[in-house]
Amino acid sequence: MFGYAGRVLYVDLTTGKTRTEKLPQETAKSVIGGIGLGMHFWLTNSKAKVDPLSPENPLVLAIGPLSGTMFPTGGNGHAFISKSPLTGGVAEAVSHGTFGTELKRAGYDAVIITGKSKKPVYLWIDDDNIALKDAAHLWGVSPAEVETTLKDEIGDYYIRVAAIGLAGEKQSRIANIINDQTRAAGRTGLGAVMGSKNLKAIAVRGTHDVAVAKPDLFVEMVQDFHERMKGPAAQKHRTLGTVQNLTINNTLTCLPTNNFNNSYFLDAGKINADVLNEGYVTRIIACNSCAMRCEHEAAIKEGTFKGTMARMEYDNLWAFGPNCGVANMNYIIKAAERCNYYGMDATSVGSTIAFLMDCHEKGLLSHEDLEGVDPHFGNEKAIYTLTDKIGKREGIGEKLADGVKVAAEKIGKNSAELAMQIKGLELSGYDLRCLKTTALAAAVSFRGADHNRSGIYAVDIRGTVDRLKAEKGSGKIVKDHEDIYNIIDSLIVCKNAKGTFDEEFADMAKLYAAATGFEVTPQELRQAGERIQALAKLINKREGLSRKDDTLPPKIMNQPVADDGAAKGAVVTKDELDMMLDDYYEVRGYSKDGVPTDAKLKELGLEKYAKEN
Amino acid sequence: MFGYAGRVLYVDLTTGKTRTEKLPQETAKSVIGGIGLGMHFWLTNSKAKVDPLSPENPLVLAIGPLSGTMFPTGGNGHAFISKSPLTGGVAEAVSHGTFGTELKRAGYDAVIITGKSKKPVYLWIDDDNIALKDAAHLWGVSPAEVETTLKDEIGDYYIRVAAIGLAGEKQSRIANIINDQTRAAGRTGLGAVMGSKNLKAIAVRGTHDVAVAKPDLFVEMVQDFHERMKGPAAQKHRTLGTVQNLTINNTLTCLPTNNFNNSYFLDAGKINADVLNEGYVTRIIACNSCAMRCEHEAAIKEGTFKGTMARMEYDNLWAFGPNCGVANMNYIIKAAERCNYYGMDATSVGSTIAFLMDCHEKGLLSHEDLEGVDPHFGNEKAIYTLTDKIGKREGIGEKLADGVKVAAEKIGKNSAELAMQIKGLELSGYDLRCLKTTALAAAVSFRGADHNRSGIYAVDIRGTVDRLKAEKGSGKIVKDHEDIYNIIDSLIVCKNAKGTFDEEFADMAKLYAAATGFEVTPQELRQAGERIQALAKLINKREGLSRKDDTLPPKIMNQPVADDGAAKGAVVTKDELDMMLDDYYEVRGYSKDGVPTDAKLKELGLEKYAKEN
Repeated sequence: MFGYAGRVLYVDLTTGKTRTEKLPQETAKSVIGGIGLGMHFWLTNSKAKVDPLSPENPLVLAIGPLSGTMFPTGGNGHAFISKSPLTGGVAEAVSHGTFGTELKRAGYDAVIITGKSKKPVYLWIDDDNIALKDAAHLWGVSPAEVETTLKDEIGDYYIRVAAIGLAGEKQSRIANIINDQTRAAGRTGLGAVMGSKNLKAIAVRGTHDVAVAKPDLFVEMVQDFHERMKGPAAQKHRTLGTVQNLTINNTLTCLPTNNFNNSYFLDAGKINADVLNEGYVTRIIACNSCAMRCEHEAAIKEGTFKGTMARMEYDNLWAFGPNCGVANMNYIIKAAERCNYYGMDATSVGSTIAFLMDCHEKGLLSHEDLEGVDPHFGNEKAIYTLTDKIGKREGIGEKLADGVKVAAEKIGKNSAELAMQIKGLELSGYDLRCLKTTALAAAVSFRGADHNRSGIYAVDIRGTVDRLKAEKGSGKIVKDHEDIYNIIDSLIVCKNAKGTFDEEFADMAKLYAAATGFEVTPQELRQAGERIQALAKLINKREGLSRKDDTLPPKIMNQPVADDGAAKGAVVTKDELDMMLDDYYEVRGYSKDGVPTDAKLKELGLEKYAKEN
Repeated sequence: MFGYAGRVLYVDLTTGKTRTEKLPQETAKSVIGGIGLGMHFWLTNSKAKVDPLSPENPLVLAIGPLSGTMFPTGGNGHAFISKSPLTGGVAEAVSHGTFGTELKRAGYDAVIITGKSKKPVYLWIDDDNIALKDAAHLWGVSPAEVETTLKDEIGDYYIRVAAIGLAGEKQSRIANIINDQTRAAGRTGLGAVMGSKNLKAIAVRGTHDVAVAKPDLFVEMVQDFHERMKGPAAQKHRTLGTVQNLTINNTLTCLPTNNFNNSYFLDAGKINADVLNEGYVTRIIACNSCAMRCEHEAAIKEGTFKGTMARMEYDNLWAFGPNCGVANMNYIIKAAERCNYYGMDATSVGSTIAFLMDCHEKGLLSHEDLEGVDPHFGNEKAIYTLTDKIGKREGIGEKLADGVKVAAEKIGKNSAELAMQIKGLELSGYDLRCLKTTALAAAVSFRGADHNRSGIYAVDIRGTVDRLKAEKGSGKIVKDHEDIYNIIDSLIVCKNAKGTFDEEFADMAKLYAAATGFEVTPQELRQAGERIQALAKLINKREGLSRKDDTLPPKIMNQPVADDGAAKGAVVTKDELDMMLDDYYEVRGYSKDGVPTDAKLKELGLEKYAKEN
């Protein structure tokens, strides 16, 4: 079994019936795998305007052409794809660990889950044997505990599990799907989709060998990339980890603080990567077959929360730290741990709490609304209490459990102006006012505000472009970054390993051919990235999104950066955004309304998908 | 002495007088060093429309803020800047080795040489003691032998020498300036400018210490970059060297062959990096303080040329190999060695020979013209014989010694259509027809056709962009690459080390501040790159160049790629070029005629230079 000789598993939770089909080679070649394959299956298995939390919304799990192999970072990833209850557009999130490896070993390239079970179940994929098993005893249980319990029950420590927590069960639109204790398919509310189906977990055991098309070349590349990963390209991830972005962004005054009221955090020195590493990190671990090791496991060593552990990254540290004005590491780690416990996306939870604090400080909330919580910026107790309430959908947590966009609708008044979201997805920790190419990328990202659809913040932060200027030509830079990220998430390899692909698409094409036997040129692979982007935009168009949704939050456009420094006074004006959007759509071959033209669809071989609209 | 506390040495060869001035800090901050500083001094010490080979054309030697330090690759470079006799625009070329280190230790950041000596001299810079010494006995001698002779005469093996050969003396417009036996400030004919002044060599002894502003940080960065250079980012340079581009370009059918009549070389396997390394390379050496080591010294081990040695890079191997249809390594190495012997740019010499072969095969030359040489593609003897004749300016060599543009003027008929040059500078080994972003960069490059003003071929070859498409947005990508290359050549660091600057401008700004004490943001450093570009364009404008010169050779626009593969049939049409030029000028803030607008000059603080036009 190599390349795409695998199968696709269809699971109908309503009827309990399952079947497998062979994955057509032409489909595999066209959309590569991962998010590309997932979007293909979602689009061809759903009807327009489907309710994201209805049985008719398919949840697709897909792996990539490298899955199950020992290629470092490539063997271990998986992706979930659906329609997002948070954005109304395409939902996708990639996770790593050991789960994807196991699914490949069981012989499946994708799992398409439709319908809704009458009672809580988990899906047990044991090589060729597929079963829906009762999950009543797992309901309300945290993802990590579900994993441990199923391993105990099945009596096999080496099964792999992806599960939702209480937040997913309660269909919180910021719920995620967690595997391997701490890894998450985090953004766009995929946990809510899984919860709406009464599907608590997916457990997998795969015992087949995974072969590749050109074993000699493949092993040579594995060795080569192991060496590359031991080198400087990945050194950051091994040492300080992603948390070092805190200091970098603060230095450039582009660290969103207090719900973007500031762009510089005075207390950043109290919670930076050195503080975390020296005082909290107890081990740094790696996914299956990865030579980088990036997962910084932090533990609280004293006080009320002694013993609490969480995987700390820049994203969750930023969301509960600077964005809430909090510089107490114990509480930040505790809030992060609660997110894993309930199965929620920490970026979205932290941002929603920051939004509440902003509303409170601006007098938009009544005393009754607050139920004894005092959500002012810098109150570390509030981030813990509120995360807990959001996880349980309890009291004020009910207002917040569907993210800032819904929270603003519930709070009313002019609170929408404080909601830091694009297409409904909360912003991550990069101040778009003073990273203008990043702002364009965030506006056009098909899954909503996020840095992980292009990684473009690097060109702003490194000074490759003038970060304070909206310039023509930024469209093409965003396009090129998106195209390579689409391949990264479809192949699937880890974004942290991008720097080891010295020759970018050329390296990736060689790797792809070594694994699958399908010869592609770097150019064809780049075009596949473009195709996957267009496919996502087709989904968004079918579901009602267009140029009007490719926009920026009010604060980014109207509230200038307040802090001293080169970025002081920066905003992204409507004119700048429109200019950049026009530039981007033109270079993409999209209409002025932001959707692929018929000519572009034809060029990419996507006409058949457009017909299904 | 640190940062720019150094001095500028003025040498008037006509009067023999010399003087020094302190380098103004504001100038240093504005144009950084290297080519930026050189262009500043050239522009402010010359009159418009100066004859490049007249005494009035200044020859500027400049080093950078890192020169003399132990920063790997940064400590050892120098640049020559002038007006080019080949292009009529700005001439600049950077070289590495040990020469720049020594000049800094002598206490000079730049040397501005004007006038013309009555008889051959060399400039002897012995710390504060400056002398013009008789060079009658060195006239006609090769640069390497000049170096050895002066070391013997002065009795100090550790002096450093840059010198011209016979080609420079005879004012061949493709002559270069060679230091450290094999390193060259190669392109744009700077050797002819030096020869026109009767200046045979510059010898330097510097004994001062060189300090940096922040020693602790600087040493930490030196250590860090040593590690980075030992890693994969520079591995290519240590192992196969630049010659590996031969195989890469051939695979993509973008290896110019037979003067661009083909884009694929059937015999590439006979002269690739493995063949070179296994059969010829005798040692791989490094410049001062460099941890990469990239210089592949090749030796011919048997036959007529036994014992001949030359430094082999992709450029000289391509120029005499595929571009002349030659697959005999002995002759390629011998031709490269002859270029060093006479002091000529191998890319230009090889391209001019390829041009002659093309003219011959198309029947444009008479039997008398050829003087017994049989210049057909693939004739290895011809590349040796013709290089020798060009070096001596003898017989048919006289026709060829000023590069393809002048050669085409002398041969007449429709030979100009076969001349592969832009602005008079011969193309390097990248087929622009199927590397379209590279084509734009080559067209706009201020020194003429060359890959080293942006390194942009990497984005085409890696598939970051669609190499077969001319797309809007390519202007900004070219601009961004040019800006960083301008800083690389001004700081001066080695282009081969670019990959070790993970954080690009951010790393460079930190390094610059550590060395000089001048704090700059990555953004300000990027803007300095933009400023240096505009300064070069101002020079070109003053000297009469404009949009009409930002063009491509006839073959690139009219003769489609002939070989099978994805690129078959590719050309860059006039419309595509015009579209990309408009896009590039717009993003640069230049007029439709390709020169910086007043608004852009003001933004960059360059108004004062414009007034001198």
